[in-house]
Amino acid sequence: MIGNNSSAIGQAHARIKNYIHRTPVMSSRLINTMAGCDIYFKCENFQRMGAFKMRGAINAALSLSESQRSKGILTHSSGNMAQAVALSAQLLGIPAYIVMPENAPQVKKNAVASYGGQITLCESTIEAREAEASRIQQETGAWLLHPSNHIEVIHGQGTAAYELIQDNSPLDFILTPVGGGGLLAGTVLAANELLPDCRIVGAEPMEADDAYRSLKSGKIEYNSSANTIADGLRTHLGDVNFPIIKSHVGDIIRVEEEEIISAMRLIWERMKIIIEPSCAVPLAAVLRAKEKFKSHRIGIILSGGNVDLNNLPF
Amino acid sequence: MIGNNSSAIGQAHARIKNYIHRTPVMSSRLINTMAGCDIYFKCENFQRMGAFKMRGAINAALSLSESQRSKGILTHSSGNMAQAVALSAQLLGIPAYIVMPENAPQVKKNAVASYGGQITLCESTIEAREAEASRIQQETGAWLLHPSNHIEVIHGQGTAAYELIQDNSPLDFILTPVGGGGLLAGTVLAANELLPDCRIVGAEPMEADDAYRSLKSGKIEYNSSANTIADGLRTHLGDVNFPIIKSHVGDIIRVEEEEIISAMRLIWERMKIIIEPSCAVPLAAVLRAKEKFKSHRIGIILSGGNVDLNNLPF
Repeated sequence: MIGNNSSAIGQAHARIKNYIHRTPVMSSRLINTMAGCDIYFKCENFQRMGAFKMRGAINAALSLSESQRSKGILTHSSGNMAQAVALSAQLLGIPAYIVMPENAPQVKKNAVASYGGQITLCESTIEAREAEASRIQQETGAWLLHPSNHIEVIHGQGTAAYELIQDNSPLDFILTPVGGGGLLAGTVLAANELLPDCRIVGAEPMEADDAYRSLKSGKIEYNSSANTIADGLRTHLGDVNFPIIKSHVGDIIRVEEEEIISAMRLIWERMKIIIEPSCAVPLAAVLRAKEKFKSHRIGIILSGGNVDLNNLPF
Repeated sequence: MIGNNSSAIGQAHARIKNYIHRTPVMSSRLINTMAGCDIYFKCENFQRMGAFKMRGAINAALSLSESQRSKGILTHSSGNMAQAVALSAQLLGIPAYIVMPENAPQVKKNAVASYGGQITLCESTIEAREAEASRIQQETGAWLLHPSNHIEVIHGQGTAAYELIQDNSPLDFILTPVGGGGLLAGTVLAANELLPDCRIVGAEPMEADDAYRSLKSGKIEYNSSANTIADGLRTHLGDVNFPIIKSHVGDIIRVEEEEIISAMRLIWERMKIIIEPSCAVPLAAVLRAKEKFKSHRIGIILSGGNVDLNNLPF
């Protein structure tokens, strides 16, 4: 098995491997025929708490000093990072403080609570979330974890591609969705360590194409609106992950909303697995840009499976 | 690895293994905690064409003589057996004649056609289906395959439990849903060969509890109505599989419709896999009869994953 324990992603993998699932890689004959290439789906929907975010959260938590750990971890999130931080803290036996917008789905609040996270509700503006997090940080001394723009988070997220490359090399391309940029940057670093010739491609909704525009302009761009079903991809890049992405990602492919829904349905119907809209975006990109990927071996990180079954697009 | 190539199920497994997927076995910490036992789910929703029926169909087709094969295979079905026969015939390069009720979902007609099955539509009564099948049989000389009451079909279905026992022994119980009885009978035979102390339990909707009543009365009983969401379990046992079931199955547990839907939702939400309502029935039975299964190791055959996403119960 290829790997390198002295490298950053290899070290992160060695650190977290007993806390995460080594998720399976799946394929579909029918989808390969439709796409004209061989696709290896890394199933992070089967990861603990249902998404790759677990990798980054537990890696960051394990990187803390004992005294930092004892004060707990803090994050503000309405989504997967809230659950990932709560579960990571539970596994390490330390407090987790989670600021969630009051309009977050009840199912997500329940999941955070089931992992022992201490929830503080606030208004659903980024200002209110940051103010509340800041107040809790001052009160408790807890460590505030950013969901994507932190180097240990990036290293943790990179372990998904690290395992995918170990299990399915050679790969000509790896695609990930791009939201905050942590997964894409981590994937770049993993490929640099294990498979430097592999090309890393981001996939993004047209409706939230800040990363595409950032690559073009060379500076971090923002979304004035983000009217996409891919709710995990509405955020923007950060100053830690953007330089990594900029230096190694040649291409970000943008897709329409109906292409995302159609790719999501294809994976549900044919692979019989539940994925979030966000992780249908890379398959939509492969189907949109067939010529680019023709006859190649493609890895796709299926980032998570936490969907609200009461609110499906089909 | 335990196994016995001179036994009926061992021979069937050796015969079909290159035509099927060896499906994975999955578990869920949360579901184990809820149920108070360790459950090993055999994921036949990931089987080729999306259900365990592929095992029985291909085993039966491979058991035919060359001259029988050349005339093709015939079945009448609106469900998984139609797809299983069509795909099996395609793999062997022989004709498949599928009689389907005209009101069968378009998605199932499309799937059968995509495997090269020659579809004949008829009225949606059992009489019309049998009449049409009989006519085609006389015209073509094709071999009529019953979906559950044929010994080679039963042997093929038993290979799912055969693999499950090989991969996850020891098991104290294996549960399967009961529809036509082929899967339950095959599971009995597999356990007899590999793990005679393992108890085999059937699970059935209250709304179609013919197998439960058959075990009580000692003769094959029928459903006067079958108003259950578990559309694969509306049929009754047959004279080939009932003697096998009667001699070895101690218990058939019946569950309410809301228990089926709730177990289905639990598997979707927590395991992130898509299963048909029919295969949620065994988990519903374990959750209903917790005392019986407490602290034991339980195998459950998840029979299939072909659901109509436009018509979900949640």
